[in-house]
Amino acid sequence: MTGEVISGVVPPGAGPEAAEVIDAGGRLVVPGFIDAHMHVESSFATPAAFARLTLPRGTTTVLADPHEIVNVAGKAAMRWMIEDGKRSPQTQLWGVPSCVPALAGMEYSGAHLDPEDIDELLGWDGVSALAEVMDYRAVVAGDQRMHDIVRVARERGTILDGHCPNLSGEELSKYLATGIDSDHTKNAPAVAVEKARLGMTVMLQEKCLLPEVVSALTSLPQLPPLCLVTDDLAADHIAAKGHLDHIGRTAVAAGLAPLDALRALTWNPAQRLRKYDRGVVAPSKRADLLLLDGELADFAVHTVIAGGAVVARGGEPTYPVPDVTDHPFAGSVHIDEIAPDEFRWRLDLPDGQHKFRALRVNPVDTYTEAAEVRLDVVDGEVQWEGHVALLWVRNRHGRTNTSCVPVIGMSLGDGALTTTYAHDSHNFVTLGTTRRAMRATAEAVLADDGGVAVAHAGGVAARLPLAVGGVMSAEPTAEIVAGSRRVREALEAWGWRHANPFMSVSTLTLAVSPSVKITDLGLVDVLARDWTPQVLDCCH
Amino acid sequence: MTGEVISGVVPPGAGPEAAEVIDAGGRLVVPGFIDAHMHVESSFATPAAFARLTLPRGTTTVLADPHEIVNVAGKAAMRWMIEDGKRSPQTQLWGVPSCVPALAGMEYSGAHLDPEDIDELLGWDGVSALAEVMDYRAVVAGDQRMHDIVRVARERGTILDGHCPNLSGEELSKYLATGIDSDHTKNAPAVAVEKARLGMTVMLQEKCLLPEVVSALTSLPQLPPLCLVTDDLAADHIAAKGHLDHIGRTAVAAGLAPLDALRALTWNPAQRLRKYDRGVVAPSKRADLLLLDGELADFAVHTVIAGGAVVARGGEPTYPVPDVTDHPFAGSVHIDEIAPDEFRWRLDLPDGQHKFRALRVNPVDTYTEAAEVRLDVVDGEVQWEGHVALLWVRNRHGRTNTSCVPVIGMSLGDGALTTTYAHDSHNFVTLGTTRRAMRATAEAVLADDGGVAVAHAGGVAARLPLAVGGVMSAEPTAEIVAGSRRVREALEAWGWRHANPFMSVSTLTLAVSPSVKITDLGLVDVLARDWTPQVLDCCH
Repeated sequence: MTGEVISGVVPPGAGPEAAEVIDAGGRLVVPGFIDAHMHVESSFATPAAFARLTLPRGTTTVLADPHEIVNVAGKAAMRWMIEDGKRSPQTQLWGVPSCVPALAGMEYSGAHLDPEDIDELLGWDGVSALAEVMDYRAVVAGDQRMHDIVRVARERGTILDGHCPNLSGEELSKYLATGIDSDHTKNAPAVAVEKARLGMTVMLQEKCLLPEVVSALTSLPQLPPLCLVTDDLAADHIAAKGHLDHIGRTAVAAGLAPLDALRALTWNPAQRLRKYDRGVVAPSKRADLLLLDGELADFAVHTVIAGGAVVARGGEPTYPVPDVTDHPFAGSVHIDEIAPDEFRWRLDLPDGQHKFRALRVNPVDTYTEAAEVRLDVVDGEVQWEGHVALLWVRNRHGRTNTSCVPVIGMSLGDGALTTTYAHDSHNFVTLGTTRRAMRATAEAVLADDGGVAVAHAGGVAARLPLAVGGVMSAEPTAEIVAGSRRVREALEAWGWRHANPFMSVSTLTLAVSPSVKITDLGLVDVLARDWTPQVLDCCH
Repeated sequence: MTGEVISGVVPPGAGPEAAEVIDAGGRLVVPGFIDAHMHVESSFATPAAFARLTLPRGTTTVLADPHEIVNVAGKAAMRWMIEDGKRSPQTQLWGVPSCVPALAGMEYSGAHLDPEDIDELLGWDGVSALAEVMDYRAVVAGDQRMHDIVRVARERGTILDGHCPNLSGEELSKYLATGIDSDHTKNAPAVAVEKARLGMTVMLQEKCLLPEVVSALTSLPQLPPLCLVTDDLAADHIAAKGHLDHIGRTAVAAGLAPLDALRALTWNPAQRLRKYDRGVVAPSKRADLLLLDGELADFAVHTVIAGGAVVARGGEPTYPVPDVTDHPFAGSVHIDEIAPDEFRWRLDLPDGQHKFRALRVNPVDTYTEAAEVRLDVVDGEVQWEGHVALLWVRNRHGRTNTSCVPVIGMSLGDGALTTTYAHDSHNFVTLGTTRRAMRATAEAVLADDGGVAVAHAGGVAARLPLAVGGVMSAEPTAEIVAGSRRVREALEAWGWRHANPFMSVSTLTLAVSPSVKITDLGLVDVLARDWTPQVLDCCH
């Protein structure tokens, strides 16, 4: 290596005298891992802190979509993320969020990006792509705003990333006709194959790495240029299981050959990101290199070299890491207090039993089913406590609207979660079985200037302050990891059993993700991209 | 299709009403073929005429290196090629010639491009790459000019193409360290594998498609992203055998699976050329499509659609084709007449037998071996006639220097060839067994304002006028095909038996192609990149 690049790849004994020798000690040398689709905020860490968490795991380049913080604080947030992202040896590239808010017209976040705004951001240094076009129903329906957004990006010739779970056939064709050519969501095996055959870059995150999906893709006559990605991984998940190294192991466990997994972590994403200077161990390429222990399939990262310098060994960073983040996004929760009758579900309905739409969750993914519950109304108030969990959404970006919906499918004790991290508008969201627990968590989060709090068995059991816009923490990374883990454990102790507990809760408000979701403005039928009634009785 | 793009890929019966329906009639639909490395001039046709020849064969996009005409007429030639290239539905992209002349300091062509010139050309519209860096010995040796040339291109982030036959190990590492990452020359199987493993784009032209090379590459755990390319194909070869379709068939015959060959004709070159809008049949991509007859492995192109319009059917263009080319490159042969004592080999040597370096050709490729011949000298003149063929090079770009060397390895009758198309400096080159035949061909080429003429059995048997700079024809394409074929046939009738007769003759002056070659300044040891003596006796 010379400077930041690989200056030679030569047989043993050949080559010029080295100023410094790093003995790989028999380890495998592979290119640094590249994440072609992810969100820094999902780790709860800010960009420089995120790098500290993930570089030791071998992730040397990421393409990040900052739509979480941009939904809270707009363009200034994007600018700040790009700058903070320069404060580490990890290469952080940025996509311009295409869906701010996620479902325009059906929710209020803290910002709004129109085609002109997106065109402006696409011209910024550090920007490489139009980030995942999530409002895929709008695109398929020919929505003018979404088409204009994709068009300004396409005219610049930039990377166009997509998000279109299980979209197929004629609708998929319409979506792709705009120029979008990637997807990272969960698809049925046949749809994953259909997308690969249409030349899309199929990106597989952890939840996609099921044996049947991998098998369908590897059964094609030619393996498509897959990319292994993380999308959303919380800090404790990264600390406990890993980052892209973990995705690599998961892919192999699901049936992908180790060399194909490696290619999907290196060469393929480098090509996708148009970073021709990396993704391969070759002269002139960027010296982002990993030394792996054991077998390739272990993806056991021992040493990490980024830009020609050793930045991590044995899971620990070896470069000076700034822990405390200076940021301008305090005070992002524009709620003065939790009102006395917050979480009282008042509806103008006659006394008696009524039928209501409920969201039914499942223990595996973020899909919510449209379900029904029967609850009594007394004096214009729905008697929900003791029967269901209630999901309560209050706008926190300067408006005062609220909405709520029952949630069923989990066996929950007395408890609650409040979060200002709630995809994608990040309003003030509380889910609970008793108003008392809900109030306790809501007040904790207010006091923390944003974050997550979980209560069960009588008190607040976990707090994860997220003072940076209510979506990222300014604490040291060890604190973030611990807080993130405590939230996960508290959710499980409450009875929320899920493969990814916080993700499943924080996506109950993600109205571009099927099939029924709730925003601060009401209940959304995701596939119809329209409101859906809360009350199902004929007499309403 | 809508306009120039594919607007949908839908199941039968789905999709909107079509204004026009093209019934594929059961044929295979594949993306148009993409040539990632080629030279328009090698066909002897100008760009628009070249498109007429090759579009019906399915070639819808090419990256062309115009170093032949640029070696003759400099930047103005590049400008003209780009403009002429716009006069057809084929997409012609251009690389800036990196080696003008090919072997700086050891030959004179009609132009000279320094790093500043190349930097300027790299900024032109229509330019996509730095074209093949052929003086690979200079690069390996650390030559300042070549390193500066590659550096200005690398700083622009453009595609960097290479040419480094059989370069390997530490020398290959030095070559690649400049940023060059492709090769299209003939390599031993192990070297092809070494290059693929170093992440180079391995491009395979016809002569590379040997079973042992294909086998070595397909034995790798993962098939590298190969590109099938044409490099240099003459007009008659294209007319008789095909263009990229022929290369595809050749690849399959050599053992490459048909689908892998297809990928190497479409997706891989599209990615290499960074043309993300093509190389796959998918919505939003450019509507460059082929309808193939029979089996995929036949690569039997029936219908060609370029930019959404049918441009060829059954081997014939269906768009209006401009035949006669208007060009500013007449009068490029700056030789007034063939002097009376031209082809008399005069050397200041004592009478008697002497040993001379000769070039030994072979019937398969362009490799020339350093051989020896013994010839008598009488009165300061080498008595070569009747014993060897003599290769005579005269500068035609305004200088008067000449050089010559015996050529052995073929069983030739009385005859000769003169050509102003002689890689890469395109000087006035004559190869013959008698001075009479050499004079006849030389005078024919002078009269034609540049071109090729072949004489045998008493007279000029074939003439291919190349009035455009002495390297391309301004005649109708049918004439070019016929003239090119007659040259090939005449060479064979003369006794020149070779897989690619004209190519093997026209590369005797290509001093970057191993192992001994001749320029207008003298004999070159290609691997040493240095002069090599003409006279081998100790008494010289």
